[in-house]
Amino acid sequence: MIRPRLMIPGPIEFTDEVMAAMGQPTKSHVDPDFVAVFGQALRDLRKVFLAGDDYQPFILAGSGTLAMDSAIANLVEEGDGVLVVDTGYFSERMADICRRYGGRVDLLSAAPGDTITPEQVAERLNSRNYELVTVTHVDTSTGVLVDVEGVAKVAKEAGTLVVVDGVCATAGEEMRQAEWGVDVYLTASQKAIGTPPGLALLVVSPEALAKWRGRRTAVGSYYGDWGPWLPIMEAYEGLRAAYFATPAVNLVEALAVSLKQILDEGMEQVFARHRRISDAVKAGISALGLEQVPTDMRHAAHTLTCPRYPPGVDASFLKEVRKAGAILAGGLHPKIKTEYFRIGHMGAVNANDALAAVAAVEAGLRAVGYAVEPGVGLAAAQAVLTAA
Amino acid sequence: MIRPRLMIPGPIEFTDEVMAAMGQPTKSHVDPDFVAVFGQALRDLRKVFLAGDDYQPFILAGSGTLAMDSAIANLVEEGDGVLVVDTGYFSERMADICRRYGGRVDLLSAAPGDTITPEQVAERLNSRNYELVTVTHVDTSTGVLVDVEGVAKVAKEAGTLVVVDGVCATAGEEMRQAEWGVDVYLTASQKAIGTPPGLALLVVSPEALAKWRGRRTAVGSYYGDWGPWLPIMEAYEGLRAAYFATPAVNLVEALAVSLKQILDEGMEQVFARHRRISDAVKAGISALGLEQVPTDMRHAAHTLTCPRYPPGVDASFLKEVRKAGAILAGGLHPKIKTEYFRIGHMGAVNANDALAAVAAVEAGLRAVGYAVEPGVGLAAAQAVLTAA
Repeated sequence: MIRPRLMIPGPIEFTDEVMAAMGQPTKSHVDPDFVAVFGQALRDLRKVFLAGDDYQPFILAGSGTLAMDSAIANLVEEGDGVLVVDTGYFSERMADICRRYGGRVDLLSAAPGDTITPEQVAERLNSRNYELVTVTHVDTSTGVLVDVEGVAKVAKEAGTLVVVDGVCATAGEEMRQAEWGVDVYLTASQKAIGTPPGLALLVVSPEALAKWRGRRTAVGSYYGDWGPWLPIMEAYEGLRAAYFATPAVNLVEALAVSLKQILDEGMEQVFARHRRISDAVKAGISALGLEQVPTDMRHAAHTLTCPRYPPGVDASFLKEVRKAGAILAGGLHPKIKTEYFRIGHMGAVNANDALAAVAAVEAGLRAVGYAVEPGVGLAAAQAVLTAA
Repeated sequence: MIRPRLMIPGPIEFTDEVMAAMGQPTKSHVDPDFVAVFGQALRDLRKVFLAGDDYQPFILAGSGTLAMDSAIANLVEEGDGVLVVDTGYFSERMADICRRYGGRVDLLSAAPGDTITPEQVAERLNSRNYELVTVTHVDTSTGVLVDVEGVAKVAKEAGTLVVVDGVCATAGEEMRQAEWGVDVYLTASQKAIGTPPGLALLVVSPEALAKWRGRRTAVGSYYGDWGPWLPIMEAYEGLRAAYFATPAVNLVEALAVSLKQILDEGMEQVFARHRRISDAVKAGISALGLEQVPTDMRHAAHTLTCPRYPPGVDASFLKEVRKAGAILAGGLHPKIKTEYFRIGHMGAVNANDALAAVAAVEAGLRAVGYAVEPGVGLAAAQAVLTAA
């Protein structure tokens, strides 16, 4: 049997070069070769995020939730006002984390599938004083994309820091951290960044570092505190070994390979590829007669697609899709969990993967008795992929 | 050139089977095959720790410092008395973490190279009320071993919980968590557990879980909070997928392989092998005329050896050792950092590795002009290895 493609919203399929780095003999964390690799990964992370030279990257052993935890633990103090732009499951997690560290949290919530506009954010920021705005760039639970450029603009005008959770977006969705004025952009390794799970990644603006340096109280979390990590990141970037806690050596080596592959392709090309693949998958899904969770394709993510099950079809159909060659994910948002499924298409995804996913959905639908003409979804996808 | 053996106190050399698991295509974190592997790793972790069936294992993405952070964040509340048995750098880190979460910390400190006895701990526990005692099983900075069995006994008599940092000890030094009454035993993946760095591992007693359940206040750290993790660990062990944060899939697969290799050998055999290898390395080092940091071999760790540089030799000699085939580590304890070096011998270490390390030290010493007869260290090591 052919191994089915892993097309969930992370972990994804990684490149052969990344997996080879994973399986290499582990180096000492202070080996000069490893120090060079870690230093390069830090520099390349800044480039992939399109951040400025004065932005500080952090590469930590942990999941994406650690990246969220670390951003908030360092930037929120008791009583700080935080406006959480809420487009789903992960926005609500961000709110939980903010409350844990003493933030007084207001949610600006969209219905599942809707987004929040910069105008809505501006209105709230004008109504009350906030130290921080948090945004989920793409909420994995709904496939909804937020206009981060617009939100960051109104936040800057209000003098508020912006933390953007890019877990399901970074290196897939367009993001220009310095140009847009995003204070913290964070992600996990196993999404479009293209490295197996286990690394939390953050890039922090000078303004956010200044806010952290001016804290009145100790950072709530010990492990996520930037205090001990900052000199380590500076040392490795300066090609000197330093120790606070042992880095996840093989994951960092794999990350360095992946970041180089991304930069070799070029960020504009990477963004464009994700748009094209996404358009193709979405066209295929529409041609099969399936609706999607995002209420408007203008705020649909390009890193995943969230089709609604057609009448008479439920999550058991995903087993048939798997047999047909693609591993997809079920729903995640508590309010609509049983009504939709999710197709991840990010990282080293290509046109063949897009076609494979659409073909597997077609086959899966037919297997559970949903009438669909073979190839109709594929034809729609192919039309997008071959458009000039 | 032959790749030199990595013989620092972690990361270490991992087995081929473990590295093959690292490089396998990453599975979905909810794939039934991965769920089975994660479940097995949790069960096997309990066995390697010789913990009871009612002890709760946690496998988290993060470094060993996260394991320390998580143990303390969950068990310490504002004003709790913590007695830190201090045998070096990592004991002091434990004290820092306890303070971060509101503990009023007393240090019971040994001079570098000395240990702390159960009698000393008993005396302190009788003088004042403590909620928690922390112990560094082996402090990587000094190579000093603490009598955990004895300390746990006096702590139990005083009604105090015991947290043992096993980062440089677990699966190398003898530890019988249930029999000895250790409430939290924690470690990192990259030491004797035999998996590349990136996993924090804890096994928690029913008594510690009860203390955590009875907390008056929220756990200080979000990411390290057992609250959201506990149902995930229970689900995976029950062979059901569940989601809080994406596990480090490849590292967990590698861990499962490594734990199985350890259990296939058998814990008694593993402990005995570490003692024999350690005795051989230490005999070789002594035969070369080098002193060691531990002031008495009865409290010297079996997972690493900390030789003092002989007169006229300093850290630059480690480059010569590397050329001769072994990567060793420099000193770490701030007070004596430049006076000694460290040889790690844990995990899948064997007699050949012990001889390789001693041979490389011999060659390195000769290369920097320290007079030593070739083979004298090796002969002493070999005498131990071949003793009945």
